[in-house]
Amino acid sequence: MSIQNGHTKHLNVAVVGGGLVGSLEALFLARRGHRVSLYEYREDIRKTPHVRGRSINLALSVRGRRALRDVGLEDIMIKEHGIPMRARMIHRPDGSTYSIPYDTRTNQCIYSVGRNYLNAVLLKESENYKNVTRHFNHKLLEANLPKGELKFVKMDTKETVSVDADLIVGTDGAFSAVRRAMLKQPLFDFSQQYIEHGYLELCIPPNCQGGFQMPPNYLHIWPRGNFMMIALPNQDCSWTVTLFMPFKNFKGIDSESKLLEFFEKYFPDSIPLIGEKKLIDDYFGGSPSPLITIKCRPYHVSDKAIIIGDAAHAVVPFYGQGMNAGFEDCTILNNLFQKHKDDLTQILAEFSNTRWQDAFAICDLAMYNYIEMRDLVTRPSYRIRKALDDLIYWISPDLWVPLYNSVTFSTMPYSQCVKNRQWQNKVLAIIIFAAGVFAFILLCWARR
Amino acid sequence: MSIQNGHTKHLNVAVVGGGLVGSLEALFLARRGHRVSLYEYREDIRKTPHVRGRSINLALSVRGRRALRDVGLEDIMIKEHGIPMRARMIHRPDGSTYSIPYDTRTNQCIYSVGRNYLNAVLLKESENYKNVTRHFNHKLLEANLPKGELKFVKMDTKETVSVDADLIVGTDGAFSAVRRAMLKQPLFDFSQQYIEHGYLELCIPPNCQGGFQMPPNYLHIWPRGNFMMIALPNQDCSWTVTLFMPFKNFKGIDSESKLLEFFEKYFPDSIPLIGEKKLIDDYFGGSPSPLITIKCRPYHVSDKAIIIGDAAHAVVPFYGQGMNAGFEDCTILNNLFQKHKDDLTQILAEFSNTRWQDAFAICDLAMYNYIEMRDLVTRPSYRIRKALDDLIYWISPDLWVPLYNSVTFSTMPYSQCVKNRQWQNKVLAIIIFAAGVFAFILLCWARR
Repeated sequence: MSIQNGHTKHLNVAVVGGGLVGSLEALFLARRGHRVSLYEYREDIRKTPHVRGRSINLALSVRGRRALRDVGLEDIMIKEHGIPMRARMIHRPDGSTYSIPYDTRTNQCIYSVGRNYLNAVLLKESENYKNVTRHFNHKLLEANLPKGELKFVKMDTKETVSVDADLIVGTDGAFSAVRRAMLKQPLFDFSQQYIEHGYLELCIPPNCQGGFQMPPNYLHIWPRGNFMMIALPNQDCSWTVTLFMPFKNFKGIDSESKLLEFFEKYFPDSIPLIGEKKLIDDYFGGSPSPLITIKCRPYHVSDKAIIIGDAAHAVVPFYGQGMNAGFEDCTILNNLFQKHKDDLTQILAEFSNTRWQDAFAICDLAMYNYIEMRDLVTRPSYRIRKALDDLIYWISPDLWVPLYNSVTFSTMPYSQCVKNRQWQNKVLAIIIFAAGVFAFILLCWARR
Repeated sequence: MSIQNGHTKHLNVAVVGGGLVGSLEALFLARRGHRVSLYEYREDIRKTPHVRGRSINLALSVRGRRALRDVGLEDIMIKEHGIPMRARMIHRPDGSTYSIPYDTRTNQCIYSVGRNYLNAVLLKESENYKNVTRHFNHKLLEANLPKGELKFVKMDTKETVSVDADLIVGTDGAFSAVRRAMLKQPLFDFSQQYIEHGYLELCIPPNCQGGFQMPPNYLHIWPRGNFMMIALPNQDCSWTVTLFMPFKNFKGIDSESKLLEFFEKYFPDSIPLIGEKKLIDDYFGGSPSPLITIKCRPYHVSDKAIIIGDAAHAVVPFYGQGMNAGFEDCTILNNLFQKHKDDLTQILAEFSNTRWQDAFAICDLAMYNYIEMRDLVTRPSYRIRKALDDLIYWISPDLWVPLYNSVTFSTMPYSQCVKNRQWQNKVLAIIIFAAGVFAFILLCWARR
């Protein structure tokens, strides 16, 4: 590749990482006329059989949908590949269930989509652009970000490939090699934090008729205090079941009898759905994966490199916002390309300076939501709060958007969602206090 | 090197980093009979002329002294190379001064010691041990920590050297290469955080008679709210002066006239001491360095590798505890070698599991003390609190140790120092409240 003038419309862009965010970002850049080379460490996902253990379905919500709409792919994802989930379905330990809708006012929903489906759709779409080339099996070896230089090794032939780009976009996920090169830059703040819980994937297969074994339009949750299990529906009528639990608890379940005892105690209704043998095979066939939160800043190196998506802000999965936040990065970056007429110096600096507050906010929100999902959701205080929230939201939808709704069903900046919640908490405290005083006065008056 | 049995007394230990903590740790290990190879990236500091800009003097306090005592070097450092500092000397903007003693009760002090002096003393002492070898100009290229394998390149000959150790001790500072290898270990939490302030070193030379230009037994501070300057005495009667300030302020002072105007406004008394020409030369001859905080855990990899000192917990310099905390690591590690009879599995795990709380605490304390030094110290509320603290400490020294004293003049675990401060705050709040109520009652009674 050759260096172009800063302000031309035909930049040579190297996108490192061909996952969801990388393949979407390639489309955004291609639509602006830039020449995009997309490098991916793995083989073309369209040619790979499913790898067990990696989260295979995701919850697509408004932020992700907006980005897909911008590249003309919202409808195909929603209509052909997405399964709407309109409510949480809570499973009690006795097997009984009840549901908590996501959005009582406008009946919005989140969509369960397959990671591989979505990635394949994005990659296939990129083939419609002559200015996008795809390079699979390319592992990043070295990066000189200030100079825009990359060196890859081809995993099959072991040949090395040198690349010289006007812009490097790092979309290579939570363990980003591009970000690793940024670690040496002066004044680069970085943190990686694991939680003490891991996750393990199980599966509920379709029934004999090839249909769903549970009502499909729900995100099923088995909240159990310090741990939980969830299930999201797949296109083939199976369910991806994920058990989240402290690593030490996983370690304690080290025999078939202990596993069955554990499931009979906490998730009895799931055993006939998963099947006893399959449960044992899947549990002992895998090992729990860790969950990490990544925060860093700045996201850019001069006018040459930027990281977005999980590479910039990996979150734990409990708000269903990892992919949505990454897709929103693409939207924001695209708007900045528009605003600054492809002037990289301004685009990258503004992205870095404005996005981190929202990225930090969603990292914290995702961590908080784990406690809500596995514990708080079962408590009366949670349901009272939610009822109050929904009531005021219903009365005054412009003024009062509950936290979950603003995060999931709006494009309000994440940091603003948090600030909203804070003043809502204060208002509710005052209302409850006033109601208490009023009740007390009423009582005194009635007793006279 | 060859692998030894786990419990033998003669482990082959590779210490990576020959700075203060590394060269001290080598002594501790050598005294236990282990074979120590000390690898240092730079040249032998005893042969190098002083490198400008790197902090050249440090405040040695009780924790550091205890470690030096254990290897028989406390007296030489204190008596021959240390300059006692018994109080802070505060310089007001008008040039007037007043002092705040560090320890009114037992008159303990901190010692200004030269980094190079101390490092040279430690390296020289290691030559008295036949089981220590020193390897300078060795840069770490690769580390396989779980296997205890290291690969260095010799900076002069470019020859590579492979090392196979029973134990790797990473003492290679805030930007540790050993720690970088740990980053890839599963469940390794890590954060690096820069502050928005940088530092620049200046110098007050000795006077014409070769003596000190300011009273020597003080740590001089020019607190100015959002920035500050400090000075520590050197053996040659010069002073190392350090200006701490937001980077953007450094950037704003871009001409000689602006520099002199700035100093005339905020540090007028320092100009004749430094000398106008020398001030200009030193200010524009250097560039401000960043300040970083590093937190991570765990500190070890199985029974093969451990990081200590700045590599494990780099702190900002405002509590004067960076070196002291690193030296305390050596003491603690040595006590664990004693306790567990050189059983590395137990030693490393216990160090990791117990030390991080204290390391995190001193990171936070150091960050807090910057605000105290540059701002709070000038406020009446600070002086009232300190007077109260000192009074209760004087009355009841066993029960009530003020925060600064517990950190600097005791070996109380740092996290315990913080907890102490928290209950002291509560007690003081109660006392002040009770005094207020008592005063109010007295007033009412007097008015009757």
